Amino acid sequence: MEIKIMKNILDRNQNKANEVRSLLASKKVIMVNIISSPGAGKTTLLECTLECLVKSFKIGVIEGDITTDRDARRLKRFGIPIVVINTGGGCHLDSHSISKVLAHFDLDDLDVIFVENVGNLICPSQFDLGETFKLAVVSVAEGDDKPEKYPMLFREARAVILNKTDLIAHTDFSNENFTSDLNKINSRIIRFDVSCTRGDGLRSWLEWISGQITGLSHI
Amino acid sequence: MEIKIMKNILDRNQNKANEVRSLLASKKVIMVNIISSPGAGKTTLLECTLECLVKSFKIGVIEGDITTDRDARRLKRFGIPIVVINTGGGCHLDSHSISKVLAHFDLDDLDVIFVENVGNLICPSQFDLGETFKLAVVSVAEGDDKPEKYPMLFREARAVILNKTDLIAHTDFSNENFTSDLNKINSRIIRFDVSCTRGDGLRSWLEWISGQITGLSHI
Repeated sequence: MEIKIMKNILDRNQNKANEVRSLLASKKVIMVNIISSPGAGKTTLLECTLECLVKSFKIGVIEGDITTDRDARRLKRFGIPIVVINTGGGCHLDSHSISKVLAHFDLDDLDVIFVENVGNLICPSQFDLGETFKLAVVSVAEGDDKPEKYPMLFREARAVILNKTDLIAHTDFSNENFTSDLNKINSRIIRFDVSCTRGDGLRSWLEWISGQITGLSHI
Repeated sequence: MEIKIMKNILDRNQNKANEVRSLLASKKVIMVNIISSPGAGKTTLLECTLECLVKSFKIGVIEGDITTDRDARRLKRFGIPIVVINTGGGCHLDSHSISKVLAHFDLDDLDVIFVENVGNLICPSQFDLGETFKLAVVSVAEGDDKPEKYPMLFREARAVILNKTDLIAHTDFSNENFTSDLNKINSRIIRFDVSCTRGDGLRSWLEWISGQITGLSHI
């Protein structure tokens, strides 16, 4: 019974996601669905990214959180449109809530929407939001075994950011193990090793994401 | 409609959890449900804990994982009964799967069962497994804002372990903010600050958990 219910929920989510995807394509807006464990650094990555891109692109942000608007407040200084979705206990965003909040944006005046999903390495990867692509973020401090233990996200994501590389020296993180597991799961995934707090490795990420926005938003 | 379904699922889970709790009480076995984000250090904590307690107590372990038996393999050297539950994508353990795997243990020959839940700060806190209490584990590297952003677990847990204190100097973790948020959510929660890799702070935790086992297993 539960399998059937889950299938229904996912089917309805998929239909709405397809609608969202069509709408965004017609408006030439790309949407990046950022997924990670709690505390891997999604908001800090967004801060670094906005810092650099906010002058070149028209950017909106959707902040998914169980409760509080703490992350959104950290992004307020950029003066861009931000909408918070509080799931009230829900462990992921879905396409219906995304579809609703899109009404709060002027899509004719946007190039890209970054969606910061709820901090969770599992459930968000199962719900298509109508995004252009998923971006996985994983922190060195979580250990090198995350791709093998939580493969769904890494299978689905177009790119992965390995964050907090400044902590490598203080942990037993093995770059070799991480790379080998990741390649087995998704050999085409694009990878950026960065330290958002130090700024290491950010340039490659910023160039790539700019290319994605430029390339895709003008198709 | 989805709310009703969720209520049914939770009701059925609660009924089975009550059964599990009665069974364990009748056998004088305590069960500790360990919950954290991916990579906060549940398995390393279990290694440190087993290292110390395995001579004094009869211990069993249930390992919850999406896929793989990597964590269970790390505990094999202790020669204790370990059962793996692979959820195959499921984001939390539930009382029905716990009830089933209890048949694989000789409950007359156990003092305590440690359950390592799936790495997820959200869903596992909503599903009672019939445990004696929940233990939250959170890593310094995740940031000091986790109790406020993911309050459910911290509200429910009897104790919280703040792990990876060796990384504090390399992060912007504020002990003051963490403490103040945690107190607002659950002022009675018992807290241990530890570094499982360095061994710092483990003695208090080990004394406390030994007391929980001794006290409760002989009621």
